[in-house]
Amino acid sequence: MTTGNMQEGNVLKPVKVGVCGLGTVGSGTVNVLRRNAEEIARRTGRPIIVEQIGARRDNPNCDTTGINITRDIFDVVSNPEIDVVVELIGGYDIARELVLKAIANGKHVVTANKALIAVHGNEIFAAAREQGVVVAYESAVAGGIPVIKGIREGLSANKINWLAGIINGTGNYIMTQMRDYGRDFNDVLKEAQELGYAEADPTFDVEGIDAAHKLTILGSVAFGIPLQFEKAYTEGISKITPLDIEQADELGYIIKHLGIARRNDNGVELRVHPTLIPKDRLIANVHGVLNAVMVQGDAVGPTMYYGPGAGAEPTASSVIADIVDIARGLDIDYANRVPPLGFTDETLDQNTPILPMEEVNTAYYLRIQAVDRPGVLANIASILSEKGISIEAIIQKEAKESQLVPIILLTHQTKEQQMNAAIADIEALADVNDEVVRIRVEGLDS
Amino acid sequence: MTTGNMQEGNVLKPVKVGVCGLGTVGSGTVNVLRRNAEEIARRTGRPIIVEQIGARRDNPNCDTTGINITRDIFDVVSNPEIDVVVELIGGYDIARELVLKAIANGKHVVTANKALIAVHGNEIFAAAREQGVVVAYESAVAGGIPVIKGIREGLSANKINWLAGIINGTGNYIMTQMRDYGRDFNDVLKEAQELGYAEADPTFDVEGIDAAHKLTILGSVAFGIPLQFEKAYTEGISKITPLDIEQADELGYIIKHLGIARRNDNGVELRVHPTLIPKDRLIANVHGVLNAVMVQGDAVGPTMYYGPGAGAEPTASSVIADIVDIARGLDIDYANRVPPLGFTDETLDQNTPILPMEEVNTAYYLRIQAVDRPGVLANIASILSEKGISIEAIIQKEAKESQLVPIILLTHQTKEQQMNAAIADIEALADVNDEVVRIRVEGLDS
Repeated sequence: MTTGNMQEGNVLKPVKVGVCGLGTVGSGTVNVLRRNAEEIARRTGRPIIVEQIGARRDNPNCDTTGINITRDIFDVVSNPEIDVVVELIGGYDIARELVLKAIANGKHVVTANKALIAVHGNEIFAAAREQGVVVAYESAVAGGIPVIKGIREGLSANKINWLAGIINGTGNYIMTQMRDYGRDFNDVLKEAQELGYAEADPTFDVEGIDAAHKLTILGSVAFGIPLQFEKAYTEGISKITPLDIEQADELGYIIKHLGIARRNDNGVELRVHPTLIPKDRLIANVHGVLNAVMVQGDAVGPTMYYGPGAGAEPTASSVIADIVDIARGLDIDYANRVPPLGFTDETLDQNTPILPMEEVNTAYYLRIQAVDRPGVLANIASILSEKGISIEAIIQKEAKESQLVPIILLTHQTKEQQMNAAIADIEALADVNDEVVRIRVEGLDS
Repeated sequence: MTTGNMQEGNVLKPVKVGVCGLGTVGSGTVNVLRRNAEEIARRTGRPIIVEQIGARRDNPNCDTTGINITRDIFDVVSNPEIDVVVELIGGYDIARELVLKAIANGKHVVTANKALIAVHGNEIFAAAREQGVVVAYESAVAGGIPVIKGIREGLSANKINWLAGIINGTGNYIMTQMRDYGRDFNDVLKEAQELGYAEADPTFDVEGIDAAHKLTILGSVAFGIPLQFEKAYTEGISKITPLDIEQADELGYIIKHLGIARRNDNGVELRVHPTLIPKDRLIANVHGVLNAVMVQGDAVGPTMYYGPGAGAEPTASSVIADIVDIARGLDIDYANRVPPLGFTDETLDQNTPILPMEEVNTAYYLRIQAVDRPGVLANIASILSEKGISIEAIIQKEAKESQLVPIILLTHQTKEQQMNAAIADIEALADVNDEVVRIRVEGLDS
């Protein structure tokens, strides 16, 4: 490291930061560091100075007066003046190269890049350990909400049993609009794109990949397991219809797109999918672009962390919190720091498997389009019974113009593979048209 | 310090803890440290061992096998083996003496004692600084919710504008029961005492003193000001009636007992009182014994932290998190640690005043019992207008058996001293009987 704990009067030597990427979060970070410089220095005990910015172009939303600008982000990681490299370029390959070079050069790293950490985190943390530097990533999960800190440090006394989060703001915005106005998925998505809430290519958000990146990180921090993004089960919201939202409402539930991590005797569940939650759960009332993560620990019980999950300044808030953590303890040895995933590297659990979705136990909402003929319901009930699945509630609607009636079922918990088999049998019934709609149900109550 | 960062294989030397007090929280702490010893050691990098317990009597809920027990808590602070003293005896004087002796002996201190920190914290933190030790108190505010860490570290980039919390579980339980079942305050309190949710002497809880202790701490951590409990405005819930809860509901509000800290150009507001909150705010849906704290920072926007605010293991969760923080960084210099109030000691703001309640701006709910005669409402409206107070909504109920009608008013924001003057004039009207009921209203929206 280039700076030490040398005092100048009562104020320690500044920490010098290099920011790579000057998009939404980069400009937010530079702006907040400037605006709140005094407050931040009062908290940190030393000034935090943006020494250099690496970005392909300027950003009109960001005042960079007095800051050294380079068009080559790799200048930043080799700048000997810089203590902390802030990676805000996003993506996989270049970000990985940049971060590994920064680490090799003895820089601490702060990143908001959930894809990078979820996919290359194990390699990056090993390199950081080798060099004795910090790689901090609070802003990668749930934007401005300090939930990584909450789990790694605030709940360190607990065996975490499960967590469940609304961790993609775009998805939650779409689900909220669909519910409040009975609108179609595609209709809301198009508007969200026009308003800038959704990307031109919305795949990462609506297909659950972004949420799975974040869930992978949360799961590792909760249970002390290596990052295993490739084993997370990922299902998006594009098949959710206003009809299912309405039926769920009638049954006392709200549909949310959740990331769920749960530990049981056989392994760890890591799954992202639409989920029916009882309306009276606090997290069921988290709407629009906001995020929330419930975390259940054996000592503390259920807790929840709520706030803006994206946006320039909320994300900058967490980026800077990571910088402040580093700056407060610039001279601390690696062994005295919070380990990257909250468990010491050598005690990460390499053996506990991530369970395939077929092994997951959950309850289900099923919507079956059937011909309105006697005996259909009996056939369906008998298939479920054969598979050992018990029914909690049934709504059978009257047929309207068409001869098809929707049959809505809530089941008790069963293994996903039992449900797959039951659905295959139900779909094979002569009186059942279309695919069976299946949405998982979670009580989130203990 | 008696132990250092000496490695034995890959595991660092144990941290030895002395627990003073073996009541609810003390036994929870010992039990969770034992049950989760392995998980905690994986997080901490070294075992945490309860070396000694000081308690006047045993606790049948706690297995103390193998732990040295003393009947004199002061033995613990002078035990040379002990690194961290955990103060769980509660109260002011003996706790203060114990903690100051522990500090003088070079021990780190963890305490769940909100009264102690709110009233003697400035003195205690000065002593801790002198000795270079930590005094940690996460469990003193909102039990198992890591909100002190959230503000001091997670939101360190922000200028905090305000915070508002449901920070007394007993009070929230009583308010929830009153609302759900239309019951009287005294009736619910009596039951809560029988169930063990409320103390035999409920003054600290129902008169807001416990909440004011916690609010004092939250305000200092949010704004970087010294602890000034004596200047906090404190009003309890004992005067809230089912009628007001019902009227608030009709207007779209829920009444919660809140601690509110807000910074404006003139100073800092620190106030605990019943508050009308719009029903659709997330915090309005926090019921029963649960706690929640909203924190609004200029960069992040509104965030919220929710969970169990009391109880043996939830409180132990935060006590142990503090121990883990100390144990993870046992060898860190004071200058590299998070300062006690989240701002370096020398930058604590000694000048910004805590505003007297008369200077606070807020909106109001008023309930006026008036004789059902023409002109009464006009008289009231004209008094408010004279004082520059504008009315947002009025409900005038029809008179029932009595000749008295309740007039319900919601006002826009005004200074408390204007409202005091208006209420005095309204109470002086010949047609107004009884005291005017006044409950403050907060939007908590930005």
